[in-house]
Amino acid sequence: MHNIKIINDKDIFFMNRALTYAKKAYDSDEVPVGAVIESDGRIIASAFNMRETSKNALCHAEIDAIRRACKRLGGWRLSGCTIYVTLEPCPMCAGAIINARINRVVYGAKDSRAGAFGSVMNLNNYPLNHKPVIVPGVCADECGALISRFFYKLRKKRNNPD
Amino acid sequence: MHNIKIINDKDIFFMNRALTYAKKAYDSDEVPVGAVIESDGRIIASAFNMRETSKNALCHAEIDAIRRACKRLGGWRLSGCTIYVTLEPCPMCAGAIINARINRVVYGAKDSRAGAFGSVMNLNNYPLNHKPVIVPGVCADECGALISRFFYKLRKKRNNPD
Repeated sequence: MHNIKIINDKDIFFMNRALTYAKKAYDSDEVPVGAVIESDGRIIASAFNMRETSKNALCHAEIDAIRRACKRLGGWRLSGCTIYVTLEPCPMCAGAIINARINRVVYGAKDSRAGAFGSVMNLNNYPLNHKPVIVPGVCADECGALISRFFYKLRKKRNNPD
Repeated sequence: MHNIKIINDKDIFFMNRALTYAKKAYDSDEVPVGAVIESDGRIIASAFNMRETSKNALCHAEIDAIRRACKRLGGWRLSGCTIYVTLEPCPMCAGAIINARINRVVYGAKDSRAGAFGSVMNLNNYPLNHKPVIVPGVCADECGALISRFFYKLRKKRNNPD
């Protein structure tokens, strides 16, 4: 059952929720990545990238969402959950998803610099003790466009300070 | 300069400090892994595995130590720091070390089940934007023996639940 890719209306619905969090990151001058964790059709945790604001290398959207979901469910195993994230997880976040035993990872844009579920590497190709189902490319254009817009804004700001 | 392996007295000194934290994990019935982060010859953060106690999949020793070090130094970049950890980091922790730009990773025992700096995979073999220097096998026997003792105790407890 691993790695079967099925995109459905539910995936698009929850990815749109993740996108609303990515927009909060954009408004906070953070690389705009948002994540929600769903269990039994309900969002049990949500977060957006806060690395600069929090001055903490761990504060990617997925990590904060996993921390909140563990707190909400009262245990470290998030079996049965799906994480929706607007950008392909990096090795840290992909590793955290595996450690938390999340069943399914639905992501938007690919990350050619650090993506660890298909782009730079695929952690599912290694004999780790859990392999989530990966569904890439959901609302990819919208997720990617938000990130492109952020870096365009950043370059413009750097070239025209004040 | 990447991946040059030099073990010195300083490495052994700090690994012994990491081992004292691993023993705290052992005493808390957690898989005994400890970590310290060193900067300019001083320990700026320390932690031990707390996954069961904290009911949080993220609470590996390295993650908690990185969070504390970022807080201590007031930024997400831990450039110039060395992390000493008694067990080879898993993909989540290895990814976090790379994201935090930690210079050097000194570890004790290898992890044949999840090690991401040489055993199951080596994140340094991928074109990520930072490659820490890896020094494996420092006090490996002592670090590994503590983990073996823990699992022996666990099996004994499971077979004789009194």
